[in-house]
Amino acid sequence: MSNNTFTSFTDVSTLGEFGLIEALTKDNPSKHLSTIKGIGDDAAVIKNEEEVTVISTDMLVEGIHFDLMYTPLKHLGYKAVVVNLSDIFAMNAVPTQITVSIAISNKYSLEALKEFYDGIYTACKFYNVDLIGGDTTSSPKGMVISITAIGQAKKDKIVYRNGAKKGDILCVTGDLGASYLGLQILEREKQVYLAHPGVQPELENSQYLIERQLKPEAQMGAIAYFAKEGVVPTAMIDVSDGLASELIHICTQSGTGAFIEEGKVPIHPDSERTALEFKLDPITCALHGGEDYELLFTIDEKDLEKIRFMPEVFIIGEITDAADGIKLHTTGGNMHDITAQGWNHFRE
Amino acid sequence: MSNNTFTSFTDVSTLGEFGLIEALTKDNPSKHLSTIKGIGDDAAVIKNEEEVTVISTDMLVEGIHFDLMYTPLKHLGYKAVVVNLSDIFAMNAVPTQITVSIAISNKYSLEALKEFYDGIYTACKFYNVDLIGGDTTSSPKGMVISITAIGQAKKDKIVYRNGAKKGDILCVTGDLGASYLGLQILEREKQVYLAHPGVQPELENSQYLIERQLKPEAQMGAIAYFAKEGVVPTAMIDVSDGLASELIHICTQSGTGAFIEEGKVPIHPDSERTALEFKLDPITCALHGGEDYELLFTIDEKDLEKIRFMPEVFIIGEITDAADGIKLHTTGGNMHDITAQGWNHFRE
Repeated sequence: MSNNTFTSFTDVSTLGEFGLIEALTKDNPSKHLSTIKGIGDDAAVIKNEEEVTVISTDMLVEGIHFDLMYTPLKHLGYKAVVVNLSDIFAMNAVPTQITVSIAISNKYSLEALKEFYDGIYTACKFYNVDLIGGDTTSSPKGMVISITAIGQAKKDKIVYRNGAKKGDILCVTGDLGASYLGLQILEREKQVYLAHPGVQPELENSQYLIERQLKPEAQMGAIAYFAKEGVVPTAMIDVSDGLASELIHICTQSGTGAFIEEGKVPIHPDSERTALEFKLDPITCALHGGEDYELLFTIDEKDLEKIRFMPEVFIIGEITDAADGIKLHTTGGNMHDITAQGWNHFRE
Repeated sequence: MSNNTFTSFTDVSTLGEFGLIEALTKDNPSKHLSTIKGIGDDAAVIKNEEEVTVISTDMLVEGIHFDLMYTPLKHLGYKAVVVNLSDIFAMNAVPTQITVSIAISNKYSLEALKEFYDGIYTACKFYNVDLIGGDTTSSPKGMVISITAIGQAKKDKIVYRNGAKKGDILCVTGDLGASYLGLQILEREKQVYLAHPGVQPELENSQYLIERQLKPEAQMGAIAYFAKEGVVPTAMIDVSDGLASELIHICTQSGTGAFIEEGKVPIHPDSERTALEFKLDPITCALHGGEDYELLFTIDEKDLEKIRFMPEVFIIGEITDAADGIKLHTTGGNMHDITAQGWNHFRE
């Protein structure tokens, strides 16, 4: 009855998520002076006297972003909050509130939802944020979670993706690739379990990787360290899609190139071992795995001394001219172009 | 593999939405002084120097909240924004920004999504708000929309649900029940169409009702009038679930009773006529229909003169003592208790 048919048909899967967002949001000028930053970074920024309000939102869909067969609901609630707070930290802001909306099918009991909210409240307590609203509704099938995180910062301390400049030092707050490998293990054991329901899953030696996947943490400590030491990174982003994709975001938005030293990229020994087990290259997992929720940031050379004593930081490369491209210096002495191969849910 | 089974099983459908929210959010103390209002009103309020930030969020699920068979995607986008802005207006705040997240299955083309966003931008332009972020992801089936609206207000102008007191005048900004009746017509014509695909739907005399359902508006003018005249309602809520349900919210949170004069409740002539066609009582549609997005508010008697000249306002009753209950004075001279029978998606 309504006219939802069109003369041409562009398959969304051909665009990718960023292409789709670009296509849908390019004619969107700001109308308010208070809209300091809209679409295009980890979070939006709204001016508010001295402090600015920072807002970020994420949607998680059952069967796309999570599999309840191996994800305890408490962990799901915890992780759903953490991935949003990670975006606020990536702006060098302090998260203060969240809203949580869920749509659920009738297969969820109150007890199940309480487990989920238990995880949400555990994260709220640990990260010192208030749950201030949301929506709860039904869905014909499965679960959908939408979380909006709100944070505060002084306007001149906000760090965008676009501030990196030639000569800046490229740093990351922790090891990469572990979460992706944790997911590979969980998927493998799920298949084993489906084929042989009596067999106990082999997860004993994979504790670290599985925890990185099911219960990631956001980098609250890094932001606190920056504030204490008076360092403001020149650019920052959280590693949700993989190091390669995030570095490309920083370089594209900053108009620079960069190089990464393969040997400097932090990879956990368990990740090394498990990558080989799966016949994967550990650096590929670090570059393209995603869901690490570490912070990738750049600092001016003059701040190097202040960063050296950061409890968890790894210097992995440097910002270069745009003409030099985005490169990986391999341990074997070769140079490779870094291209994005992160998660693309539309192609899966 | 993960332990998502529980020893007891409380069916969510037995709780209703408010019961579920209560069950899930009761142990949720605020940790920040900046959290002036969290869960429990139309929107949350965050302190920010002189102006406060007001945030509200809603989730819309295909097959639950909308049916694409008779909802043009442009209207869907427009309405999705409007229902959120309505919550901001219901706080006596001015909406300034929104975030929009969507999960979509692969049946949606780019053209379809552009139609949807066209509706979103049309609403943004009309209501003068900026779209500042969101998330776009895939879903195994159907469409899910999550919108967060952000607004600003002076702290002392914010109107909660809990400020009504005995003797206050109960007002509403427009006619009620039309949206529900528009939905009944659309559902009827859908059934006719499914049975006889060649038959054109009979919508000609139902323009007004269908527009109230498919393209509702939020009450921007009322808020502007309050600001101009220096009136601050004592309590306010938007009519999304039906007059009865909203009045009960105000009375419960304010610790009062109320009465409504049946003859004073504004009902459009088309609603009267169509209600009778469907063998429904027009006042029942007004009390329990919902989705009108008018504002229900209470004012102190002393402000009555200022309200009389409001372009669109109907005085429908008065706030009383809690002991007097929440009553409908019928045109026939009888008194009825008003009980909530609004939408309950979990029971559908």
